[in-house]
Amino acid sequence: MIERTLFQPDHQAFADSFRRFIEKEVTPHHADWEDQGYVAREVWSQAGANGFLCMSLPEEYGGAGADKLYSVAQMEELARAGTTGIGFGLHSEIVAPYILHYGTEAQKRKYLPQMASGAVVGAIAMSEPAAGSDLQGIKTTAIKSADGSHYVLNGSKTFITNGWHADLVIVVAKTDPAAGAKGTSLLLVERGMPGFEKGQRLKKLGMKAQDTSELFFNDVKVPAENLLGGPAMEGRGFICLMEQLPWERLQIAITAVAAAQAAIDWTLDYVKERKVFGQPVASFQNTRYTLAELQTEVQVARVFVDKCCELIVKDQLDTQTASMAKYWTTDLQCKVMDECVQLFGGYGYMWEYPITRAYADARVQRIYGGTNEIMKEVISRGMGLK
Amino acid sequence: MIERTLFQPDHQAFADSFRRFIEKEVTPHHADWEDQGYVAREVWSQAGANGFLCMSLPEEYGGAGADKLYSVAQMEELARAGTTGIGFGLHSEIVAPYILHYGTEAQKRKYLPQMASGAVVGAIAMSEPAAGSDLQGIKTTAIKSADGSHYVLNGSKTFITNGWHADLVIVVAKTDPAAGAKGTSLLLVERGMPGFEKGQRLKKLGMKAQDTSELFFNDVKVPAENLLGGPAMEGRGFICLMEQLPWERLQIAITAVAAAQAAIDWTLDYVKERKVFGQPVASFQNTRYTLAELQTEVQVARVFVDKCCELIVKDQLDTQTASMAKYWTTDLQCKVMDECVQLFGGYGYMWEYPITRAYADARVQRIYGGTNEIMKEVISRGMGLK
Amino acid sequence: MIERTLFQPDHQAFADSFRRFIEKEVTPHHADWEDQGYVAREVWSQAGANGFLCMSLPEEYGGAGADKLYSVAQMEELARAGTTGIGFGLHSEIVAPYILHYGTEAQKRKYLPQMASGAVVGAIAMSEPAAGSDLQGIKTTAIKSADGSHYVLNGSKTFITNGWHADLVIVVAKTDPAAGAKGTSLLLVERGMPGFEKGQRLKKLGMKAQDTSELFFNDVKVPAENLLGGPAMEGRGFICLMEQLPWERLQIAITAVAAAQAAIDWTLDYVKERKVFGQPVASFQNTRYTLAELQTEVQVARVFVDKCCELIVKDQLDTQTASMAKYWTTDLQCKVMDECVQLFGGYGYMWEYPITRAYADARVQRIYGGTNEIMKEVISRGMGLK
Amino acid sequence: MIERTLFQPDHQAFADSFRRFIEKEVTPHHADWEDQGYVAREVWSQAGANGFLCMSLPEEYGGAGADKLYSVAQMEELARAGTTGIGFGLHSEIVAPYILHYGTEAQKRKYLPQMASGAVVGAIAMSEPAAGSDLQGIKTTAIKSADGSHYVLNGSKTFITNGWHADLVIVVAKTDPAAGAKGTSLLLVERGMPGFEKGQRLKKLGMKAQDTSELFFNDVKVPAENLLGGPAMEGRGFICLMEQLPWERLQIAITAVAAAQAAIDWTLDYVKERKVFGQPVASFQNTRYTLAELQTEVQVARVFVDKCCELIVKDQLDTQTASMAKYWTTDLQCKVMDECVQLFGGYGYMWEYPITRAYADARVQRIYGGTNEIMKEVISRGMGLK
Repeated sequence: MIERTLFQPDHQAFADSFRRFIEKEVTPHHADWEDQGYVAREVWSQAGANGFLCMSLPEEYGGAGADKLYSVAQMEELARAGTTGIGFGLHSEIVAPYILHYGTEAQKRKYLPQMASGAVVGAIAMSEPAAGSDLQGIKTTAIKSADGSHYVLNGSKTFITNGWHADLVIVVAKTDPAAGAKGTSLLLVERGMPGFEKGQRLKKLGMKAQDTSELFFNDVKVPAENLLGGPAMEGRGFICLMEQLPWERLQIAITAVAAAQAAIDWTLDYVKERKVFGQPVASFQNTRYTLAELQTEVQVARVFVDKCCELIVKDQLDTQTASMAKYWTTDLQCKVMDECVQLFGGYGYMWEYPITRAYADARVQRIYGGTNEIMKEVISRGMGLK
Repeated sequence: MIERTLFQPDHQAFADSFRRFIEKEVTPHHADWEDQGYVAREVWSQAGANGFLCMSLPEEYGGAGADKLYSVAQMEELARAGTTGIGFGLHSEIVAPYILHYGTEAQKRKYLPQMASGAVVGAIAMSEPAAGSDLQGIKTTAIKSADGSHYVLNGSKTFITNGWHADLVIVVAKTDPAAGAKGTSLLLVERGMPGFEKGQRLKKLGMKAQDTSELFFNDVKVPAENLLGGPAMEGRGFICLMEQLPWERLQIAITAVAAAQAAIDWTLDYVKERKVFGQPVASFQNTRYTLAELQTEVQVARVFVDKCCELIVKDQLDTQTASMAKYWTTDLQCKVMDECVQLFGGYGYMWEYPITRAYADARVQRIYGGTNEIMKEVISRGMGLK
Repeated sequence: MIERTLFQPDHQAFADSFRRFIEKEVTPHHADWEDQGYVAREVWSQAGANGFLCMSLPEEYGGAGADKLYSVAQMEELARAGTTGIGFGLHSEIVAPYILHYGTEAQKRKYLPQMASGAVVGAIAMSEPAAGSDLQGIKTTAIKSADGSHYVLNGSKTFITNGWHADLVIVVAKTDPAAGAKGTSLLLVERGMPGFEKGQRLKKLGMKAQDTSELFFNDVKVPAENLLGGPAMEGRGFICLMEQLPWERLQIAITAVAAAQAAIDWTLDYVKERKVFGQPVASFQNTRYTLAELQTEVQVARVFVDKCCELIVKDQLDTQTASMAKYWTTDLQCKVMDECVQLFGGYGYMWEYPITRAYADARVQRIYGGTNEIMKEVISRGMGLK
Repeated sequence: MIERTLFQPDHQAFADSFRRFIEKEVTPHHADWEDQGYVAREVWSQAGANGFLCMSLPEEYGGAGADKLYSVAQMEELARAGTTGIGFGLHSEIVAPYILHYGTEAQKRKYLPQMASGAVVGAIAMSEPAAGSDLQGIKTTAIKSADGSHYVLNGSKTFITNGWHADLVIVVAKTDPAAGAKGTSLLLVERGMPGFEKGQRLKKLGMKAQDTSELFFNDVKVPAENLLGGPAMEGRGFICLMEQLPWERLQIAITAVAAAQAAIDWTLDYVKERKVFGQPVASFQNTRYTLAELQTEVQVARVFVDKCCELIVKDQLDTQTASMAKYWTTDLQCKVMDECVQLFGGYGYMWEYPITRAYADARVQRIYGGTNEIMKEVISRGMGLK
C-alpha cells in the first residue's frame, strides 16, 4: 500500500478527535435517527461547541482559519463511520463558503459565526421538481418589489440536504426570468419568513437519517439586503455556482473513496471470519480476486483524490478534473458496495449490517452534485468534443 | 420484439384475473405492509378463496391440477406489480410440492388443502446463521426419541421467507448428525409446537413487506409422523432438496425477467415525459443506447427463460441450465434496476418511486436460492471443471 | 445444457458433410491463404461442385431449394473451424438473394446458376471511404446516358468482402444524386467492365485469408439491363437493402455464437490439460467461474439465435430483433475471445493458436453489417425513443 | 487536466531528443520490421551511439548515471509512437540492472559497457513451454561439472523478448533441481556457446517487429564464472528475480498508460474529422461519453503511475502496489484500445491504422510480466487473504 502524504500531524490529530466525537455523539444514535428521518438538532450545537463546524472560515467569522484538509479529514471520518445523516460538509464547506466568498460584510457577520457555532444550520436550494440539476431551467422567481425594498420569492425546491433542519437557505432564483442564466441570483432565506414552508422529509433508499426535504416559497418577501453579495451580485448567481463546483464535486469524491475503503475493510474482516463449506470465505479465489480488484481500484482512486486535494488547497483544481473525480469515484463506490454486499451473502441484505446501509447510502452519490452523465458532458467539453 | 408463445389463452386469462386481484387487494396496501414489515394475513385467505394458491396441486388436494405455467404467470404479475411482500410462490410452488412429491398420503391430506385455501401458510427453513446456503453444514438436529415416537428438534434458522406468518414449516435438520448430507431429513413443524419460537422479523434493504424471520427450535418434540414422507425418507432430505432445485431456481429467474421488463417500461414512460435542458430525457443518445442495451438483454433473457419454462413443464430442465438462468437473469435484473434508477435521476432515490423499491428488492435475488457464486460452481462442474 | 431442436436430421447430415469438406479442402490450406491474403479460387468451384453454394436458391436457378437452415448449419461449421477466409455466406445468402428477390428473370438466369456452380463469385459494394455504413451518404453515382442504354458509374468502395475474387458485384449507387435515399439503385457490375478496377487487398487485424478489397469505378459503362430488377427498380435500391437487413444481421449473429462456442470448447480442453503451479488451470476457481460465465452467456445466446432462426424461416424476424441479435452476440463473441485468450496465457498471443486468430477475426463483427452503435439506434427507435 | 510534475526539464529534453530519434530512425522502418519479424540490428548501435541505452548505469560501466525517470520518458516515447518492436526497456532496465545489482565486478566490466554501446543485445530467459510464469516450476537445469569449471545447461525457453537478436541471455535455471525455488540460479549465456540454439521467431497477434523467440539449450557448457554474481549467488536466483519485480512491473504500467493516452489522442483527432450521417463522429453523445470515460480513467492511471514512479526513484515501491499498477493499467490499456477501435469503425480493423496495431500490441500486456491473475494473487496475499 502507498503511504498517504496528504495530511500533516495536525490534520491527523483533528481526525482522531473528530472520530471520537462520532463514536460518542453520533454512532450510538444513528439508527434511531434513521428511523425518525433526521438527526438530533443538538448534534449540530455539540459539533459547533467542539469546533467541528466551519473550520475553514476565518477566525473573525467564528472559524479556525484552517486549510481545507481539516474538512477533508472530517468528511473521511464521517464516511468511514457510515454516519451519513450528518450534513456538516454541506453546511461548512458549501453553504458557508458562498457567504464568505460572495456575501457582503454584513451578511458574513450576521450568519457565519452562527453557522460556526451550530446555532444556524445552512442549506442550499437548487434542484426543482421540474428541472433537476439543470440550473438554467429553474423556475423559482424572485421579483423585486416596486420600491426595491424586497424580492417576492415564488417556487418550490426539492432534494434539499439539511432541508428540514435548515435555519438559513441559500435559494437559487431568477431575479430576471427573461435573462436565462444571467438572470440568476442567490437569496438568503431564513426560517420563519412568512410564506416559506417546509414540505415533507423525503423517504429515500438510503441516507435515511438525512433530513432531505422539499421547500416551498409562496410570495415570500425577502428583504433586498438578503440578496447574497448585495445589489452588485444581482444576476450573477450562476457564476458563483460555477466557481464553487470543483470543491463541491471533490467533496463527493472524498466521501466516495473513504466509504469504499471502509467497506473493503469490513468485508476483509468478515470473509476472514466467516466459513462456508468448511473453509473461510477468504480462502476462495473468487473472494481473493474480487477484493484484490476492489482494493486496487480504491487505492488508485485514493492517490487520485489526494492529488486533487493537493490541487484544491492550492486553488488549482479545474472543473474537468473535479468532474472526473466525482464521476469515477462514485461509480467505483457503488461497485465496491455491490460486490462487498455479495461477499456478505444473506447478511449483506440485512439492514443492521453497515455494509447494507452503505450500499443504500452510496447509490445517490452518482446522482446528486450533478449526475455522472453531466460530469461526462463537462469532461468531453474540456476535450473539445461538442 | 419477439411474440411470446409460452402461454395459452387460459394462462393469459388467469394472469389478467390475478392482475386485477393484485390491483384490488394488494397494491393499495403494499406501502403500509412495508411499513409494518409483513402483509395482512387475510390476503392469504382471499387468495385461497379466489383460487390463487397452489394451483398446480391435484384437485383432490385442493388445487386446480394446473400446469406450472399458471404459476409462472402469477409470479410474473407479482413481479410486474412490484408487490414483493407476497410469498405465494414459495408457498405454492416450493413448500406444497415438497409435500406433494415426498409426503405420505396422510401428510398430503392434512396440509395441502389447507395450504390451497390459505388457512395454512407454508415456509421452508434451510439457512442457518452459521451455514448460509451450505446445506451440508447445517447444525440443526432432530434426534429420534428412544421410543421412536418423536424427534427432538434443536437449532436456529434465519432468512426464512414467510417466516413470521408461517403455520407450517418444513425444517431441514440432521437426523443423523454424523452422516453428513446423508443424515439430512425434512420435518413438518407446526406453529404452536412447544419450543418453536419465531425471532424478530428481519429488517432488510428491500422486500420490506416480506416477513422474513428467524426461527428458533428449542427441544421441540416433533411427532414421528411429521417426518416428511415417513420413515422411509429419513436421511433422504438432501436428495429431495436437490431434486427440486431446478424449479426453485427457475422461479427466481422468472421473477427477475418480469421485474426487469417492468422497470424498463416504467423508465421508458418516464424518459419520454421528463425534460431536462429543454428536451426529453428520451432524446439523449445516452438514454437511448442504455435502454436499447437493457431491452436487448431482457428480450434475450425472456426467450431463454421461456425456453426453460417449456422444459420444466416437460420435466426436462437440468440443474446446470436452471443455475444459468438463476445467475444470469438476476445479475441482469440488478443491472437493469441500477441503470434505470440512474435515468430517473434524483427521483430514482426516492422511496415512493417504484423503481427505487424495485432496485432495493432486486438485490437479494443474486444471493438467495443459492448465491450466484454457487450457481457458477454448479455450472462449472457440469462442464467437467473441478 | 439445452438440447438444440433447430435442426432436422437432414440439416445435421448436411452439416457433417460440409464439415468434412472443410477438413479436407479448407483447413489444410487456410494458414497459407492467410499469408497470401486470399483463398484459392478453386475452393469456390469445389464448393459449387459439391452443392455447398447457394443451397437456398430454387432448383431452376441451380440451387437446392433448401430452407435457410442449411445455410445456418454451413455458417456454423465455418465459424467452428475458424476458416474465416471463406466468403460463401455473403455470396450465397446475401448477394444471390438480392438477385433472386429483386432481379429480372433474365438476370436470374444469367447469374444465379453460375453463382451456384462457383463459376461466378459474388460481392456487394456498399461502404465508401467517406461514408462508412451510412447508406444515405454514399457518393458513388450511376448516371443514365442520354440514350438510356447504360449508366455511367463513378465512385469508390471499400471493405468489400470477396472483393478481390469477385466476378459480379452489386454496386450501390445513386442514379438520382439529388433524391437522397430514394435515388439509390443497385447495379450488377461484372469483372472486366472497362473502368472497373480492384484496389489493393486490405491488410487487416484478422480475417487475413479474406480478400477484402477496395473497388474503383471510373466511368464504367454499365448496360441499362444490368440495373438490378430492371427499370421499375430504379431508385428503389434503398428499400431492397432495408428488406434484407434482418437476415444479413442474423448471419453475423449465427457466426458469432458458433465461433464463441468453439472458443470455449478449445479453452476447456486447454485448461484441463495445462498445469501451472502444480495443478491444472481448470482447477482454479477463477478459471471455473470465468468459463461458467462464458458458457452461460453463449448458451443463452444460442437459444436466442435459434429462436431468431426459427422466425426467419417463417419470415417473421423483425429488424429490431435482428439488430439485437447482431449487437449482443458479437459483443459476447469478443468478450469470450478476450477471456479465453487470457486463459491460454502466453500461447493466447501466438498466431499459430486458433484462439489467437479467433480473437483477431472476431473484432470486426462488432463493426461490419452496421456497427453495434447503429444497431442500438435501430433498437431504440423501435422502442419509440427518438 | 492535471499538469504532470514527474519530470524535470532535463528529462523532458531527453524525451524530445529521443522522440526525434524515433521519428528518424525507427518509425520510417517499423512497418518493414513488422513484415520481417525483427528490427534492424543497427538500430541498437545507433541507439547506443546516441546514449539511448542503459542510461541509468553508472558512467564507469558505460551509462550516464541517470535516474530512472529518463528510462520512464523513453518508454513513454516508444509507447506513444507505437514502435513496439524496440526492446530497449528490457535490455536497459531489466537485463542490465541484474548484472549491475548482482554481477561480479568482472561480469559488469565485461558486459555492461557493451550493452550500453549496443554491441551486445541482452535478454532474459524465464518462461518455459511447460511452466509459463511459474518460476518455481521451471525445468531447465544447470548442473555443475565434477571439476567445478562449468555448468551443463539443458532446457528450453519460450516467449523470449529480444530473443533472436540477443547476444547475451540471462538464463533462469535450476542448479539444484531438488531444492525448489532455493535451487534457482541465473547464468550468463552468450551467443555462440555450443548447444545454444535459437528457435523460430514467434508469430504473434501483435508486437510483430519484436523478435520474440524460443531458445534451446542442449548440453551447453557454461563456464562457472558465468554464474551471475559468482559462487555466492548459486541458488539465490529466485530472490534476485523477486527483488526486481516492482520495477519490471511498473515498466509495463508506464507503457500501458502512455500507449492508452496516445490512442485517445489519435481517436480524438479522428472523430473530430470524420463525419457520418452528416455530422462529425465527435458530436454524438455516445462518442463524447466514451472518450470522456476513457480519458478519465487514463488520467487517473497517469496520476497513479506517476506516483509509483516517484516511489521507485526513492526505492519505496512495494510489490503489491507495483502489481496493482501492472494489472490495472494493462486492463485499462486494452479497454481503451478496444473502444477506440470501435470509434474508428471499419478503419479500426485495417492494419495500416496505428490504432489497429496498438490494439493488437496491447493484448499481451495483460499476460506477460506475470499474468494479471498472478498480480491479483500477489495483491490478495498482501491483504492477508489466503
